[in-house]
Amino acid sequence: MNKKFAIAIHGGAGTILKSTMTKEKEDQYVSALKEAINIGYKILEDGGTSLDAVEEAVVSLEDCPLFNAGKGSVFTHNGIHEMDASIMDGRNIDAGAVSLIKNIKNPVRLARKIMEKSEHVILAGDGAEEFARQFNIEFADKKYFYSEFRYDQLQKALQSDSIFLDHTELDHKFGTVGAVALDQMGNLAASTSTGGMTNKKWGRIGDTPIIGAGTYANNETCAISCTGSGEYFIRTMTAFHVHSLMKYGNYNLDIAIRKVIHEILPSIGGDGGLIAIDNNGNVVMDFNTEGMYRAWKKGGENGNETENESVLIY
Amino acid sequence: MNKKFAIAIHGGAGTILKSTMTKEKEDQYVSALKEAINIGYKILEDGGTSLDAVEEAVVSLEDCPLFNAGKGSVFTHNGIHEMDASIMDGRNIDAGAVSLIKNIKNPVRLARKIMEKSEHVILAGDGAEEFARQFNIEFADKKYFYSEFRYDQLQKALQSDSIFLDHTELDHKFGTVGAVALDQMGNLAASTSTGGMTNKKWGRIGDTPIIGAGTYANNETCAISCTGSGEYFIRTMTAFHVHSLMKYGNYNLDIAIRKVIHEILPSIGGDGGLIAIDNNGNVVMDFNTEGMYRAWKKGGENGNETENESVLIY
Repeated sequence: MNKKFAIAIHGGAGTILKSTMTKEKEDQYVSALKEAINIGYKILEDGGTSLDAVEEAVVSLEDCPLFNAGKGSVFTHNGIHEMDASIMDGRNIDAGAVSLIKNIKNPVRLARKIMEKSEHVILAGDGAEEFARQFNIEFADKKYFYSEFRYDQLQKALQSDSIFLDHTELDHKFGTVGAVALDQMGNLAASTSTGGMTNKKWGRIGDTPIIGAGTYANNETCAISCTGSGEYFIRTMTAFHVHSLMKYGNYNLDIAIRKVIHEILPSIGGDGGLIAIDNNGNVVMDFNTEGMYRAWKKGGENGNETENESVLIY
Repeated sequence: MNKKFAIAIHGGAGTILKSTMTKEKEDQYVSALKEAINIGYKILEDGGTSLDAVEEAVVSLEDCPLFNAGKGSVFTHNGIHEMDASIMDGRNIDAGAVSLIKNIKNPVRLARKIMEKSEHVILAGDGAEEFARQFNIEFADKKYFYSEFRYDQLQKALQSDSIFLDHTELDHKFGTVGAVALDQMGNLAASTSTGGMTNKKWGRIGDTPIIGAGTYANNETCAISCTGSGEYFIRTMTAFHVHSLMKYGNYNLDIAIRKVIHEILPSIGGDGGLIAIDNNGNVVMDFNTEGMYRAWKKGGENGNETENESVLIY
């Protein structure tokens, strides 16, 4: 096996302050990121598809209570959990997404099922759950998503009537998770999943389920998964913007992302970050916040490099 | 007054067959399009904003039972009406959108209120209606949206278990409505509104409420409103794609749209059309279907042209 392959994941960007981070907590995050990246890497190493790799890496992050997605999802204003997710196949720019779903254990699995088994791209709310039932997607009850930590976050947010992304006053963090991968067949894929914002009202939809905003994959250029202040990522079409700069502006991945994250997003007040892989296996992980939980791992031809994996927070 | 200004509107694209069109019906469509375009034109002529012009033109089309938006919305599988709409301000790329709303008389008014009065871009379902109530948006009951014609369409669709965009067997039509405008201050705006698909299931969200897919406006380039097979418009980011080709590929409006409508969309099986205005007042209306209900009207410097308005179907 000598084809390049690579995977990158993130567990959200934001103000991750060293002062509020203990060694024990940091170890937990690093270990959760390592577990997720190794699950995806193994699939790629065994010759599996980038789609499977990003799906299983995101499932691993959704199952971890540390991240604001799946099990660790934050509470909405009404004390429920409303989750969004999306997945995209760079081979044929096919895509699937879910929004405002309440009782699905792994939203990314439902997004993939929509991509493969329906004529649609985005399904939302009760309708999406009806689709899930027909296709034997695993449900989970309110108890599964409950945690005291998230419930306390809601109470604080309710007191100040603020809408919070996943955070405390000192720890402003966008707790979305995501993965991008290049497989040995040369195919790219991307996936993103989120539990939204603490105290979220009014059926707000962020960038995560919006193809081109929070998630994009196209074998012609790159695969992207974003995390940040979703409204700004929608207005600038962040993920597709990187693709456009590469395809029509002849930017490389690195420069395209620098422009989007450090010029275009900040010009309208947007903060956050993204992870990306181009069709040559180059990985870029960039953000305009203080930190982003992230990791990458490369194999095949890339394995000859001195360093072939990395887990980072700040 | 000698600044250029212009507005264009559409009432959906698709297989509009002359064989199923009577003179009387054609007159009705032409008259409805004329009414809507004149409402928008008057606002621009009086020095009003492109935002007001596109909102009021779309309201006029939403109030007309001929088009699949607002009052004329088709029935979903469950016999209800689920509407989507969006609006975008080219000055500051601010945007608002609603999805899966049931009881709002004019979805475009709610989209604009979200843009101006919330921190969000997209609100959906019951949550969006809760927001609407707080901001005194006009509601309408089931009776308002009922028509025998639309109900019969649903019965036919249920019999064959097909998901239809607004059509009969002979008349396959995407009944979305939209407007784009350039005002005398040089600002662009775009808006789109739809009643979705007859027999629509599972809380499907199409391209209409997705900024960058069905609607986009940016003073740097152009304003766009799309109509067609929404899933393909999402996957190709149709509206933002035109912007990208102009901004990063140095295409002019005409060639950019030709590429998107006649190359990129058909390459994955997408059909439909769009209307657009660039920041110099050029209007382009293009589609890869047999027809698109459409009209444009120009004033100011443009008024010197021999022809300064046009209403077309085929």
